[in-house]
Amino acid sequence: MAWEALAKMRDANPLVQCITNFVSMDFMANTLLAAGASPAMAHAIDEIDEFVAIADALCINAGTLSPEWLASMKAAGARARQLNKPWVLDPVAAGATSFRTSACIELLALGPSIVRGNASEILALSRASNLPPTKGVDSAHDPSQALGAAKSLAEKYHCVVAVSGAVDLVTDGTRVVSVSNGVPMLQKITASGCSVTALIAAFAAVYPREQHLEACAFALALFGLAGEIGMSKASGPASLRLQLIDALHGLDQATVSSGVKISEAS
Amino acid sequence: MAWEALAKMRDANPLVQCITNFVSMDFMANTLLAAGASPAMAHAIDEIDEFVAIADALCINAGTLSPEWLASMKAAGARARQLNKPWVLDPVAAGATSFRTSACIELLALGPSIVRGNASEILALSRASNLPPTKGVDSAHDPSQALGAAKSLAEKYHCVVAVSGAVDLVTDGTRVVSVSNGVPMLQKITASGCSVTALIAAFAAVYPREQHLEACAFALALFGLAGEIGMSKASGPASLRLQLIDALHGLDQATVSSGVKISEAS
Amino acid sequence: MAWEALAKMRDANPLVQCITNFVSMDFMANTLLAAGASPAMAHAIDEIDEFVAIADALCINAGTLSPEWLASMKAAGARARQLNKPWVLDPVAAGATSFRTSACIELLALGPSIVRGNASEILALSRASNLPPTKGVDSAHDPSQALGAAKSLAEKYHCVVAVSGAVDLVTDGTRVVSVSNGVPMLQKITASGCSVTALIAAFAAVYPREQHLEACAFALALFGLAGEIGMSKASGPASLRLQLIDALHGLDQATVSSGVKISEAS
Repeated sequence: MAWEALAKMRDANPLVQCITNFVSMDFMANTLLAAGASPAMAHAIDEIDEFVAIADALCINAGTLSPEWLASMKAAGARARQLNKPWVLDPVAAGATSFRTSACIELLALGPSIVRGNASEILALSRASNLPPTKGVDSAHDPSQALGAAKSLAEKYHCVVAVSGAVDLVTDGTRVVSVSNGVPMLQKITASGCSVTALIAAFAAVYPREQHLEACAFALALFGLAGEIGMSKASGPASLRLQLIDALHGLDQATVSSGVKISEAS
Repeated sequence: MAWEALAKMRDANPLVQCITNFVSMDFMANTLLAAGASPAMAHAIDEIDEFVAIADALCINAGTLSPEWLASMKAAGARARQLNKPWVLDPVAAGATSFRTSACIELLALGPSIVRGNASEILALSRASNLPPTKGVDSAHDPSQALGAAKSLAEKYHCVVAVSGAVDLVTDGTRVVSVSNGVPMLQKITASGCSVTALIAAFAAVYPREQHLEACAFALALFGLAGEIGMSKASGPASLRLQLIDALHGLDQATVSSGVKISEAS
Repeated sequence: MAWEALAKMRDANPLVQCITNFVSMDFMANTLLAAGASPAMAHAIDEIDEFVAIADALCINAGTLSPEWLASMKAAGARARQLNKPWVLDPVAAGATSFRTSACIELLALGPSIVRGNASEILALSRASNLPPTKGVDSAHDPSQALGAAKSLAEKYHCVVAVSGAVDLVTDGTRVVSVSNGVPMLQKITASGCSVTALIAAFAAVYPREQHLEACAFALALFGLAGEIGMSKASGPASLRLQLIDALHGLDQATVSSGVKISEAS
């Protein structure tokens, strides 16, 4: 099924508009191109309405946030919702400062289709949304610690929530799917999380909202699989990044069918 | 002749000021360094007058455009014109939104020496300049479809216009030169078009305005040739990008003399 | 001693907040990650107070300066000083324009722990600080030409000053330490100077202010050593950059102990 998803996304070549942090732009655009999508980094509020209208999906990332960019992100999120286009939120470093946390909550309230973060970001969003406390702690590195928070967020905001980690967990509030692809050294490449979020947007572009849990899992698994292939040829984080992009571009049916590790985990 | 051009540019080591999109900055600066020029990314309007005065050429790129950056671009373009320094315009995604299209028209009116875009961008600029319609369509991927538009733009704005594609076409409104270097996978590397535009500026820095058609063709050919050499060692878009930069740095007389494919095409 | 420093920094995994230019962000963040630190690119003035409070060190870089970013840099530098956290200044292109030079002087006055620049930047800061003229000239590429200026700056601003070049010189105004690691081709990689400045901040995070001269020398030596190892596997500037990051990640005790070239030079 992951292979069909990839083939479908490559065929559609969706235009993914990214309003993202400065650190991630190069790697994110190259990830989208290698996978078969078309990136467009455009953030000026003066063209948001028109640009979201021609995009197939939207990726919003809070990395190097500022009030000016936040205004564009909010306009874009609202516009995407209005036009019924999928949009994905990456709440980078939510919880680190009050500015950042409340910005992410404002964005959440605009109705993203999918949210992807690490355990501590998801826990921070949950707490800031006044959801019931869960057993997780801020410093949690294990997605399972944030699963309760992810489910509550998914229910409250009617979206899919993905928690990244050694094993990624994806939930719509009811179902939980786990993705076991990837390698630890991905943590040593800046913006690898940001890039997979953009890839999630590319897959969300070619599936209806009811299947965004699957779309999200496919993107996480394929990026992780490309990382595994890359790792077998890498001698450190920079060569891993290069090999990952090359592997993403070269993924074929046999590799995808035998390599993807997605399972229902409720 | 391309070899003499490269040797001349390397000797001069021109300082190329780039006011460019965030996605392209890393690849563009490394392209200029590898080729033998010196990049300077500086955009604050507070230092435009002084910075353009010390630069040998200017590269303006509309990629991640905003009103603030547009103001700097206009100030820089006007200043370059005043000081008779060459400047090159890359109208990224002209035609996608009205903000972007009219910004590019405003920049065109300030008198760039050279404009480089893909077929659909050149067609969009032509239409927005109220030039007679040509047979090309917006979705055109073939530069020859935009040649009429390119000639009209070149005449109206007294500049050289380059249309990138499988075969690049460069015109001053009368002459047409074609460049056949390059490989299809360059399309899978973000900002490869932006980077070649910066390289055009580096070559324009060492030639008088009457020879900017040739300067532009040299840059397109040498970047494409580096892509061909890179492709022979690459296994995907990320290794192509790495190998292209290494090849650009290592270009020697024998390789350039036998590899460059420029021909008069009018 | 350099090995102990690296082991100590890796153990501490310091959070280095970078307010830096757009060109450098990707390479800088990957340098910090590969070396064992944690990068955080965050610049909005709305979160400066909170962010500096959670960071272990701060890196401020004037590359793509604008008045808005300068305001954030000044707030961050002042906050770091207030909280007694180390911060490092990279005065990119100081001397090129009056806006840039006076911005760097304003930042210097806020009390950085360490300043790193090339010879011409250090000479420009010295002149703009009304320090006695030294024999160096603006176009100097040799750090020794700027040593007098570096000593004067270090005394006046009570900081460590590092002058990068073929042999780096580091001074606190009295002592002078020289670092002989590195390869010439590092000059052909954009933001390699910016990245080593961020690495200096990571080492400053784990040493008290009295040992910042040593911390600075360790960072310069280890980055240069990674460049030497990388160069042995590189075929141009792009492969050097990749190999440098991989080598930085893989540095072990034997390599560091035998490869680091630091000596007292006063």
